[in-house]
Amino acid sequence: MTEIAIGIDIGGTNTVFGCIDSKGNTIAEGHIPTQTKEHFEDYIDDLIAEIKSSLENVEVRIVGVGIGAPNGSYRTGTIENAANLRWKGTLPIAKMVNEKLNVPVKVTNDANAAALGERIFGGAKNMSDFMVITLGTGLGSGIVVNGDLLYGYEGFAGEVGHIIVRPGGRDCACGRKGCLETYVSATGVKRSVYKLLAKHLGESSLRDVPFNNLSAKMVAEAANEGDPVALETFKYTGKMLGEALANVASVTAPEAIFLFGGLAKAGDLLFDPVKEAMDENMLFLYKDKVKLLPSQLGDDAAILGAAALIWNDEKIVS
Amino acid sequence: MTEIAIGIDIGGTNTVFGCIDSKGNTIAEGHIPTQTKEHFEDYIDDLIAEIKSSLENVEVRIVGVGIGAPNGSYRTGTIENAANLRWKGTLPIAKMVNEKLNVPVKVTNDANAAALGERIFGGAKNMSDFMVITLGTGLGSGIVVNGDLLYGYEGFAGEVGHIIVRPGGRDCACGRKGCLETYVSATGVKRSVYKLLAKHLGESSLRDVPFNNLSAKMVAEAANEGDPVALETFKYTGKMLGEALANVASVTAPEAIFLFGGLAKAGDLLFDPVKEAMDENMLFLYKDKVKLLPSQLGDDAAILGAAALIWNDEKIVS
Repeated sequence: MTEIAIGIDIGGTNTVFGCIDSKGNTIAEGHIPTQTKEHFEDYIDDLIAEIKSSLENVEVRIVGVGIGAPNGSYRTGTIENAANLRWKGTLPIAKMVNEKLNVPVKVTNDANAAALGERIFGGAKNMSDFMVITLGTGLGSGIVVNGDLLYGYEGFAGEVGHIIVRPGGRDCACGRKGCLETYVSATGVKRSVYKLLAKHLGESSLRDVPFNNLSAKMVAEAANEGDPVALETFKYTGKMLGEALANVASVTAPEAIFLFGGLAKAGDLLFDPVKEAMDENMLFLYKDKVKLLPSQLGDDAAILGAAALIWNDEKIVS
Repeated sequence: MTEIAIGIDIGGTNTVFGCIDSKGNTIAEGHIPTQTKEHFEDYIDDLIAEIKSSLENVEVRIVGVGIGAPNGSYRTGTIENAANLRWKGTLPIAKMVNEKLNVPVKVTNDANAAALGERIFGGAKNMSDFMVITLGTGLGSGIVVNGDLLYGYEGFAGEVGHIIVRPGGRDCACGRKGCLETYVSATGVKRSVYKLLAKHLGESSLRDVPFNNLSAKMVAEAANEGDPVALETFKYTGKMLGEALANVASVTAPEAIFLFGGLAKAGDLLFDPVKEAMDENMLFLYKDKVKLLPSQLGDDAAILGAAALIWNDEKIVS
């Protein structure tokens, strides 16, 4: 019988799951809306019902369930006060799913799941020390050291997006100022465009776009057409990220740093200035040694990463 | 028969060793000058002879040798181009000592040794995620995560002293500018005193001391006598360190950060502003959760830490 791990990715809008074998193949998949139910228990019931229904005609043995969730804690198996979920406080999701399916359940945040996915199914298969930077609305990070995820004391390590890179700088949603993700993220890119439009006088197609309509993808497209503000925005974004990564390298000395997510798809537009700033700012001990690479995972990365929470432990056991 | 690990601390002037039992007791000890011999081989011969002589009248079994050395690499057992040693290139010290004594030999840098010492014999006995900051001429760091030292890809992780905290700031011996240790270290304190003497007009006992005669200890003494420049220097030093530690906490989420070394002996003068800056700059996830503590190791910390390289492995095995 095929053994599968169920990988669940809880987003603000949809919850997506996949039933993944040990090679990373998807045997079944499905999704439900995340926030239509008032009670978290009802949401879990819906999710379990949908998972069971997706497996109705398949002969499999479920090895475990891995869950990637905002503010998901590996240490406690809970979701803690996630800003983009309607249910507040501590949600004991691992315990609840375990009671329904009677298999081991592991929880972590999205970026840690992405890092595990990269290690088990992606570009970090033979690496023991690396980092995945997820570039979305914010900036997340999953860090692997000595072959294991770096969880920290209470399970919330790896908040590289909240390193303060410019004391007194841009307002951050965390309540502080100058955090890396206020510069390096889809939102950060938009803010940088508007800063540059304010600073310079030159023409730019972006002068016709209101802030709320602007997306990082539009900025990338404008840059590819030679728009000077868009080009300068990517240079600035890359410089901020490269400087920060050189600093983080002084802490964890990774073999490679993977960039993942929408913004990473901008390719050389982003990678070139990041590499340049890493080179310029890297301590001699690590110079030319830390690879900057695009993630090898596709759109199903979150699910593969969540499933990797289970397959990673299986591989350690076997 | 008593089992001992030999802990060796290689400094620029002296090489000190201790024969340490599994409880941290010193059974024998000794030292030789580090740099009187032209050839590294002759230095090693002298060191081994001195160790054997110290154990002449003691019945012990040597379990292994731990060595703390500048630029010592755990991964390769070598010393790599240490700035303050006369022998350049790669020194295969683990192999050489192993050939003489026929026991396992482990090498790491001084700060990693201090962190292991804190874990095995000091204040971090029950901690799996913590960090030791060593404050001497420079700033070193040893980081423990998931219960193990964070070595990184090539064994040189934990260079927190070389995080760039002020882009374009003070010249650093590493060739870059604005590294943490140019502000937070004995040398950094001296530089801050001179910067403040230049900026302000007020009286200070430190106006009578040439730069080359000034020590961090003198600044601490002046501060304790109420000297305003000395007091402001410690506030500034603590603020820089607290800001940086809040950032590093966003990467590794430690349970505690231990301060070790000469500057840490300044006590509240340093700890108070560090705590204040950590509080002000800490991400909400870690707020009031990361303890700032003085190291519980004394002057023999370097030797205990080096011996802990061996006892740590023994404990894992047993």
